[in-house]
Amino acid sequence: MASASSSLMLFAADSSSTARLVSFNTTNKLPNGVVQFKRFISPQFGLQNAKTIITHVSSPSSYSVASMVTEASAKVIDGKSVAKDIQGEITAEISRMKNEIGVVPGLAVILVGDRKDSATYVRNKKKSCESVGIKSYEVCLPQDSREEEVLEHISSFNNDPAVHGILVQLPLPSHMNEQNILNAVCIEKDVDGFHPLNIGRLAMRGREPLFVPCTPKGCIELLHRYNVDIKGKNAVVIGRSNIVGMPAALLLQREDATVSIIHSKTKNPEEITKQADIIIAAVGQPNMVRGSWIKPGAVLIDVGINPVEDSTRPRGYRLVGDICYEEACKIASAITPVPGGVGPMTIAMLLSNTLTSAKRIHNFN
Amino acid sequence: MASASSSLMLFAADSSSTARLVSFNTTNKLPNGVVQFKRFISPQFGLQNAKTIITHVSSPSSYSVASMVTEASAKVIDGKSVAKDIQGEITAEISRMKNEIGVVPGLAVILVGDRKDSATYVRNKKKSCESVGIKSYEVCLPQDSREEEVLEHISSFNNDPAVHGILVQLPLPSHMNEQNILNAVCIEKDVDGFHPLNIGRLAMRGREPLFVPCTPKGCIELLHRYNVDIKGKNAVVIGRSNIVGMPAALLLQREDATVSIIHSKTKNPEEITKQADIIIAAVGQPNMVRGSWIKPGAVLIDVGINPVEDSTRPRGYRLVGDICYEEACKIASAITPVPGGVGPMTIAMLLSNTLTSAKRIHNFN
Repeated sequence: MASASSSLMLFAADSSSTARLVSFNTTNKLPNGVVQFKRFISPQFGLQNAKTIITHVSSPSSYSVASMVTEASAKVIDGKSVAKDIQGEITAEISRMKNEIGVVPGLAVILVGDRKDSATYVRNKKKSCESVGIKSYEVCLPQDSREEEVLEHISSFNNDPAVHGILVQLPLPSHMNEQNILNAVCIEKDVDGFHPLNIGRLAMRGREPLFVPCTPKGCIELLHRYNVDIKGKNAVVIGRSNIVGMPAALLLQREDATVSIIHSKTKNPEEITKQADIIIAAVGQPNMVRGSWIKPGAVLIDVGINPVEDSTRPRGYRLVGDICYEEACKIASAITPVPGGVGPMTIAMLLSNTLTSAKRIHNFN
Repeated sequence: MASASSSLMLFAADSSSTARLVSFNTTNKLPNGVVQFKRFISPQFGLQNAKTIITHVSSPSSYSVASMVTEASAKVIDGKSVAKDIQGEITAEISRMKNEIGVVPGLAVILVGDRKDSATYVRNKKKSCESVGIKSYEVCLPQDSREEEVLEHISSFNNDPAVHGILVQLPLPSHMNEQNILNAVCIEKDVDGFHPLNIGRLAMRGREPLFVPCTPKGCIELLHRYNVDIKGKNAVVIGRSNIVGMPAALLLQREDATVSIIHSKTKNPEEITKQADIIIAAVGQPNMVRGSWIKPGAVLIDVGINPVEDSTRPRGYRLVGDICYEEACKIASAITPVPGGVGPMTIAMLLSNTLTSAKRIHNFN
């Protein structure tokens, strides 16, 4: 992001990078002395395309106002870089495992139907597997497959000693019973960690899940790698989905945070978030968490990846998180960007879970 | 409690009944015009035996001060009475089941060792079973039994079609692995709801547990029977035990409350409880939740049953909850007493779970 061009920086960049770049480049002046900030807030919050135009900025002292207004004090939690480090660690472990016991971890992915986004995710997972030395197995079934066919493939992977992790790409076609299919994955290979037995163990003190779901595990890993204290802190999770919000709350509680869970039925969510030392937002609402919702110095983990219209982009949209980065980065002490925050961590944790599984099955430490 | 004698009321009763009785009897005067309030706060809060003595109360107008200070506005949530109603409903259902399909629900209880409290609990459960028409089976094993013996009895009850619920009385002797033993109870007969698979389903949206743990189920049932709105309310659970706090939090969340969980590592718990519309306290700390922790009008469910020294009682102690009733009843809109609140509900829910199990196994609606 630091390499964004000047024109991008001021007119077409993510609101996030705009704010940060300006604060890091307070002596930059445009020839006409105009600094223009576009705020990309989604329509439901009524601030779409609101503009702040500061004109006739002619002296360094006047610039300091612009700098103050847009100052980004938050450290950027660089998920892309952390994920790269983790993949490096995994590569080394896999190489050691192969050398010492001749085992290569294997991950099987089952994709049903022709959703473009799902196909992209599966392709990325495959690429990441290859990059760390995990052998990937892939089954692609047509949209109108029968549930039994999926179950047969799961059963075959359950019994295949070369496969240590099985992942069914969601969502499944609507004629299939997701619960039946996910329950069919044997718990020792449930690298997604979605099996209720895993979730139960995650919830219970004194029990250990075999696998922790990848995205929430990635959130906590980011906090750990950035040395964010969790114990005794007030943590708020926004969203209570089975795959992110709920397990994220359970993980934070396991780390002795005081956890509150906010969701669509919560009245005045900002009153609760304002008490939070740590916020994990996983609700899928672009820019929902405003600056006024945030306690100064809070650490913000943004799981949301929401496309919003942006005619200045070649594709006509850009991705924003659940947290309004432009406002939040001035108040928080640390924040994940979108993209480049939690996203890359999810795949890294999937690789990590697959390695863990292979180690456990082969009793390798 | 309304039948407490005058001397008990003023000098030796539970702090709770003192406060309530005084408020209901504001025109009562002692001959010497002295009203004495003893506050039974446990030592760690530094108020043991603190006394408020109001002397020379001679006119009704002076009395109104005493009345104001001790006014108890909270409705008492009468768990004993609700539990009795529920047992009546269960009795009717069991009778209908017996008449229509000839099945009598059966509950097996395994008790290991000679703990007096455990023996009392088991005796009470047996008595309650009999009163509603559930057949109870009991195995009492000596303290030094082997884990295998317990597992054999569980296996035998798992296979016994007359048994629809199996309960292992906790705590087990320290040489036994509680996790192994609880996991051995087949999930269809796990009327305690402690199996991780049950807890996982409780945590997950769109999944249904086979059984909900009895004490937290009893807490929610009290809220329902007293028409307390849960949806959208701020609920705080104090304590995160596997058997009460954690599942209570999951249940409240299933009912669309915004839930926060407080525990021993929470800093300034009172700041969180003060926002709560509903508090479930299950921490085992006598009188921990003070009046200043409570939002006016909150609904309070007190799971704690703590013996505290009391030389005025024949046994030398009395039972208090985790909430300081004397203070709380002036601020809350409703509160459970201790004893007589959540306690009787736990057994009622165990009977209810046993009936549910028998109905499910025999496909009886």
